[in-house]
Amino acid sequence: MYNCALLKFKDIVSNDGHLTSIEERIDVPFIIKRIYYITGVAQDAERGFHAHKTLHQVLICLNGSIKIRLKTPIKEEQIKLNDPSVGLYIGPLIWREMFDFTKGSVLLVAASDHYSEDDYIRDYNLYLDEAKDTFLSHSIHE
Amino acid sequence: MYNCALLKFKDIVSNDGHLTSIEERIDVPFIIKRIYYITGVAQDAERGFHAHKTLHQVLICLNGSIKIRLKTPIKEEQIKLNDPSVGLYIGPLIWREMFDFTKGSVLLVAASDHYSEDDYIRDYNLYLDEAKDTFLSHSIHE
Repeated sequence: MYNCALLKFKDIVSNDGHLTSIEERIDVPFIIKRIYYITGVAQDAERGFHAHKTLHQVLICLNGSIKIRLKTPIKEEQIKLNDPSVGLYIGPLIWREMFDFTKGSVLLVAASDHYSEDDYIRDYNLYLDEAKDTFLSHSIHE
Repeated sequence: MYNCALLKFKDIVSNDGHLTSIEERIDVPFIIKRIYYITGVAQDAERGFHAHKTLHQVLICLNGSIKIRLKTPIKEEQIKLNDPSVGLYIGPLIWREMFDFTKGSVLLVAASDHYSEDDYIRDYNLYLDEAKDTFLSHSIHE
Protein backbone atom coordinates (compact mmCIF):
# COMPACT_ATOMS: atom_id res chain seq x y z
CA MET A 1 0.00 0.00 0.00
CA TYR A 2 1.29 3.49 -0.85
CA ASN A 3 3.12 5.10 2.11
CA CYS A 4 3.04 1.83 4.12
CA ALA A 5 5.51 -1.02 4.44
CA LEU A 6 6.35 -3.96 6.64
CA LEU A 7 9.90 -3.69 7.99
CA LYS A 8 11.85 -6.70 9.27
CA PHE A 9 14.28 -5.89 12.08
CA LYS A 10 17.31 -7.89 13.15
CA ASP A 11 16.26 -10.25 15.93
CA ILE A 12 19.19 -11.23 18.15
CA VAL A 13 18.11 -14.58 19.60
CA SER A 14 19.91 -16.38 22.41
CA ASN A 15 19.08 -18.69 25.29
CA ASP A 16 18.27 -15.51 27.19
CA GLY A 17 15.46 -14.38 24.85
CA HIS A 18 15.12 -11.97 21.97
CA LEU A 19 16.70 -8.53 21.57
CA THR A 20 15.52 -6.30 18.73
CA SER A 21 17.26 -3.00 18.10
CA ILE A 22 15.93 -0.10 16.03
CA GLU A 23 18.39 2.64 15.14
CA GLU A 24 17.03 5.88 13.72
CA ARG A 25 17.75 6.47 9.99
CA ILE A 26 19.18 2.92 9.76
CA ASP A 27 16.34 0.55 10.69
CA VAL A 28 13.55 3.10 10.23
CA PRO A 29 13.55 5.74 7.48
CA PHE A 30 13.40 8.75 9.83
CA ILE A 31 14.80 10.35 12.97
CA ILE A 32 13.06 9.09 16.13
CA LYS A 33 11.96 12.11 18.19
CA ARG A 34 9.25 10.42 20.20
CA ILE A 35 8.20 6.94 21.20
CA TYR A 36 4.91 5.95 22.74
CA TYR A 37 3.25 2.72 23.71
CA ILE A 38 -0.27 1.52 24.27
CA THR A 39 -1.05 -1.09 26.93
CA GLY A 40 -4.04 -2.39 28.89
CA VAL A 41 -6.51 -2.19 25.99
CA ALA A 42 -9.74 -4.20 26.34
CA GLN A 43 -10.24 -6.73 23.54
CA ASP A 44 -13.41 -5.02 22.26
CA ALA A 45 -11.83 -1.54 22.24
CA GLU A 46 -10.70 0.18 19.05
CA ARG A 47 -8.17 3.00 18.82
CA GLY A 48 -6.65 5.23 16.19
CA PHE A 49 -9.28 6.61 13.80
CA HIS A 50 -7.05 9.33 12.46
CA ALA A 51 -4.41 10.10 9.85
CA HIS A 52 -1.37 12.36 10.05
CA LYS A 53 -0.49 15.15 7.65
CA THR A 54 3.30 14.79 7.88
CA LEU A 55 4.23 12.31 10.64
CA HIS A 56 6.12 9.08 9.91
CA GLN A 57 5.63 6.20 12.34
CA VAL A 58 6.56 2.58 12.85
CA LEU A 59 4.19 0.37 14.85
CA ILE A 60 5.48 -2.79 16.54
CA CYS A 61 3.59 -5.31 18.62
CA LEU A 62 5.88 -6.38 21.49
CA ASN A 63 3.55 -8.88 23.18
CA GLY A 64 0.28 -10.56 22.19
CA SER A 65 -1.29 -9.47 18.91
CA ILE A 66 -3.02 -6.40 17.49
CA LYS A 67 -4.82 -5.83 14.19
CA ILE A 68 -4.42 -2.65 12.16
CA ARG A 69 -6.89 -1.49 9.52
CA LEU A 70 -5.30 0.89 7.00
CA LYS A 71 -7.43 3.00 4.69
CA THR A 72 -6.81 5.36 1.84
CA PRO A 73 -9.40 6.90 -0.49
CA ILE A 74 -8.84 3.99 -2.88
CA LYS A 75 -7.86 0.97 -0.77
CA GLU A 76 -8.33 -0.81 2.54
CA GLU A 77 -5.99 -3.37 4.11
CA GLN A 78 -5.87 -5.27 7.38
CA ILE A 79 -2.63 -6.39 9.00
CA LYS A 80 -2.08 -8.51 12.10
CA LEU A 81 1.00 -7.62 14.14
CA ASN A 82 2.27 -10.33 16.49
CA ASP A 83 6.06 -10.40 16.00
CA PRO A 84 8.41 -7.98 17.82
CA SER A 85 10.83 -8.18 14.89
CA VAL A 86 8.29 -6.79 12.42
CA GLY A 87 7.37 -3.11 12.19
CA LEU A 88 4.55 -1.53 10.22
CA TYR A 89 5.73 1.74 8.69
CA ILE A 90 2.91 4.24 8.17
CA GLY A 91 3.67 7.49 6.37
CA PRO A 92 1.55 10.62 5.96
CA LEU A 93 -2.10 10.59 4.88
CA ILE A 94 -2.94 7.00 5.86
CA TRP A 95 -6.07 6.46 7.97
CA ARG A 96 -5.46 3.85 10.70
CA GLU A 97 -7.66 1.94 13.11
CA MET A 98 -6.33 -0.50 15.72
CA PHE A 99 -8.44 -3.34 17.14
CA ASP A 100 -8.43 -6.91 18.49
CA PHE A 101 -5.80 -6.14 21.15
CA THR A 102 -5.22 -9.43 22.98
CA LYS A 103 -4.76 -9.51 26.77
CA GLY A 104 -1.30 -8.23 27.70
CA SER A 105 -0.71 -6.86 24.20
CA VAL A 106 1.78 -4.00 23.85
CA LEU A 107 1.87 -1.66 20.87
CA LEU A 108 5.08 0.36 20.58
CA VAL A 109 5.26 3.30 18.16
CA ALA A 110 8.37 5.18 17.06
CA ALA A 111 7.51 8.59 15.60
CA SER A 112 9.42 11.11 13.50
CA ASP A 113 8.31 14.17 15.43
CA HIS A 114 7.07 15.51 18.74
CA TYR A 115 3.34 15.45 19.45
CA SER A 116 1.38 18.11 17.58
CA GLU A 117 -2.41 18.14 17.50
CA ASP A 118 -2.22 20.23 14.28
CA ASP A 119 -0.78 17.22 12.47
CA TYR A 120 -3.84 15.03 13.12
CA ILE A 121 -6.83 14.56 10.79
CA ARG A 122 -9.52 13.06 13.01
CA ASP A 123 -12.57 13.44 10.77
CA TYR A 124 -12.83 10.69 8.15
CA ASN A 125 -14.67 12.78 5.55
CA LEU A 126 -12.12 15.55 5.93
CA TYR A 127 -9.40 12.92 5.53
CA LEU A 128 -10.94 11.64 2.27
CA ASP A 129 -11.01 15.20 0.99
CA GLU A 130 -7.42 15.97 1.96
CA ALA A 131 -5.99 12.67 0.70
CA LYS A 132 -8.00 12.38 -2.53
CA ASP A 133 -5.58 14.17 -4.84
CA THR A 134 -2.49 12.37 -3.49
CA PHE A 135 -3.99 8.93 -3.98
CA LEU A 136 -5.68 9.50 -7.30
CA SER A 137 -2.34 10.58 -8.73
CA HIS A 138 -0.66 7.45 -7.29
CA SER A 139 -3.33 4.88 -8.06
CA ILE A 140 -1.92 3.95 -11.44
CA HIS A 141 1.32 2.79 -9.78
CA GLU A 142 -0.30 0.56 -7.16
CA MET B 1 21.91 6.39 43.32
CA TYR B 2 24.41 8.56 41.42
CA ASN B 3 23.69 8.61 37.65
CA CYS B 4 20.38 6.75 38.13
CA ALA B 5 16.82 8.00 38.61
CA LEU B 6 13.24 6.83 38.38
CA LEU B 7 11.27 8.94 35.89
CA LYS B 8 7.48 9.15 35.95
CA PHE B 9 5.90 9.63 32.53
CA LYS B 10 2.47 11.05 31.73
CA ASP B 11 0.02 8.17 31.50
CA ILE B 12 -3.00 9.01 29.34
CA VAL B 13 -5.70 6.67 30.64
CA SER B 14 -9.07 6.15 28.95
CA ASN B 15 -11.63 3.37 28.53
CA ASP B 16 -9.43 2.25 25.64
CA GLY B 17 -6.33 1.57 27.75
CA HIS B 18 -3.13 3.43 28.58
CA LEU B 19 -0.98 5.55 26.28
CA THR B 20 2.42 6.69 27.49
CA SER B 21 4.47 9.06 25.38
CA ILE B 22 8.20 9.75 25.70
CA GLU B 23 9.55 12.75 23.82
CA GLU B 24 13.31 13.09 23.50
CA ARG B 25 14.89 15.92 25.56
CA ILE B 26 11.49 16.53 27.23
CA ASP B 27 10.58 13.28 29.01
CA VAL B 28 14.09 11.83 28.95
CA PRO B 29 17.25 13.91 29.40
CA PHE B 30 18.80 13.00 26.04
CA ILE B 31 18.20 12.62 22.31
CA ILE B 32 16.81 9.16 21.44
CA LYS B 33 18.92 7.68 18.64
CA ARG B 34 18.07 4.04 19.21
CA ILE B 35 15.43 1.97 20.89
CA TYR B 36 15.59 -1.72 21.63
CA TYR B 37 13.43 -4.22 23.43
CA ILE B 38 13.92 -7.56 25.07
CA THR B 39 11.19 -10.22 24.97
CA GLY B 40 10.81 -13.97 25.46
CA VAL B 41 13.24 -14.22 28.38
CA ALA B 42 13.03 -17.37 30.53
CA GLN B 43 12.33 -16.64 34.20
CA ASP B 44 15.67 -18.07 35.35
CA ALA B 45 17.70 -16.15 32.76
CA GLU B 46 19.76 -13.09 33.62
CA ARG B 47 20.88 -10.41 31.18
CA GLY B 48 22.98 -7.25 31.21
CA PHE B 49 26.23 -7.70 33.16
CA HIS B 50 27.86 -4.63 31.70
CA ALA B 51 28.24 -0.89 32.12
CA HIS B 52 28.52 1.83 29.49
CA LYS B 53 31.25 4.45 29.27
CA THR B 54 29.08 7.25 27.86
CA LEU B 55 25.62 5.93 26.95
CA HIS B 56 22.46 7.24 28.61
CA GLN B 57 19.47 4.89 28.71
CA VAL B 58 15.96 4.66 30.07
CA LEU B 59 14.55 1.20 30.84
CA ILE B 60 10.78 0.66 30.92
CA CYS B 61 8.87 -2.54 31.61
CA LEU B 62 5.83 -2.58 29.28
CA ASN B 63 4.28 -5.89 30.39
CA GLY B 64 4.87 -8.23 33.32
CA SER B 65 7.72 -7.37 35.66
CA ILE B 66 11.52 -7.34 35.60
CA LYS B 67 14.09 -6.75 38.33
CA ILE B 68 17.22 -4.66 37.81
CA ARG B 69 20.33 -4.89 40.00
CA LEU B 70 22.44 -1.71 39.83
CA LYS B 71 25.99 -1.68 41.09
CA THR B 72 28.69 0.92 41.56
CA PRO B 73 32.02 0.49 43.33
CA ILE B 74 30.36 1.76 46.52
CA LYS B 75 26.71 0.74 46.36
CA GLU B 76 24.22 -1.88 45.17
CA GLU B 77 20.49 -1.40 44.62
CA GLN B 78 17.65 -3.57 43.33
CA ILE B 79 14.62 -2.14 41.55
CA LYS B 80 11.48 -3.90 40.33
CA LEU B 81 9.97 -2.46 37.16
CA ASN B 82 6.31 -3.32 36.53
CA ASP B 83 4.66 -0.05 35.47
CA PRO B 84 4.78 1.24 31.86
CA SER B 85 4.60 4.83 33.13
CA VAL B 86 7.86 4.49 35.12
CA GLY B 87 11.30 4.59 33.51
CA LEU B 88 14.64 3.80 35.10
CA TYR B 89 17.27 6.23 33.87
CA ILE B 90 20.80 4.77 33.89
CA GLY B 91 23.71 7.03 33.01
CA PRO B 92 27.34 6.17 32.33
CA LEU B 93 29.46 3.91 34.55
CA ILE B 94 26.63 1.98 36.22
CA TRP B 95 26.85 -1.82 36.21
CA ARG B 96 23.44 -3.40 35.51
CA GLU B 97 22.03 -6.92 35.73
CA MET B 98 18.45 -7.82 34.74
CA PHE B 99 16.65 -10.87 36.16
CA ASP B 100 13.28 -12.30 37.25
CA PHE B 101 11.64 -11.62 33.88
CA THR B 102 8.04 -12.85 34.23
CA LYS B 103 6.32 -14.68 31.37
CA GLY B 104 5.34 -12.22 28.63
CA SER B 105 7.50 -9.48 30.12
CA VAL B 106 8.74 -6.75 27.77
CA LEU B 107 11.70 -4.51 28.53
CA LEU B 108 11.92 -1.40 26.33
CA VAL B 109 15.09 0.69 26.32
CA ALA B 110 15.54 4.17 24.82
CA ALA B 111 19.21 4.96 24.25
CA SER B 112 21.14 8.16 23.58
CA ASP B 113 23.34 6.74 20.85
CA HIS B 114 23.71 4.12 18.17
CA TYR B 115 25.14 0.73 19.13
CA SER B 116 28.89 0.76 19.71
CA GLU B 117 30.73 -2.21 21.20
CA ASP B 118 33.54 0.20 22.25
CA ASP B 119 31.16 1.83 24.74
CA TYR B 120 30.64 -1.40 26.71
CA ILE B 121 32.55 -2.51 29.79
CA ARG B 122 31.77 -6.23 30.10
CA ASP B 123 34.37 -7.27 32.67
CA TYR B 124 33.32 -6.50 36.25
CA ASN B 125 36.84 -6.06 37.61
CA LEU B 126 37.69 -3.72 34.75
CA TYR B 127 34.47 -1.84 35.53
CA LEU B 128 35.46 -1.43 39.21
CA ASP B 129 38.79 -0.09 38.09
CA GLU B 130 37.34 2.37 35.56
CA ALA B 131 34.54 3.61 37.82
CA LYS B 132 36.51 3.82 41.09
CA ASP B 133 37.66 7.42 40.80
CA THR B 134 34.26 8.74 39.68
CA PHE B 135 32.42 7.17 42.59
CA LEU B 136 34.95 7.85 45.29
CA SER B 137 34.77 11.54 44.43
CA HIS B 138 30.94 11.45 44.55
CA SER B 139 30.48 9.25 47.59
CA ILE B 140 30.38 12.12 50.06
CA HIS B 141 27.30 13.52 48.28
CA GLU B 142 25.25 10.32 48.32
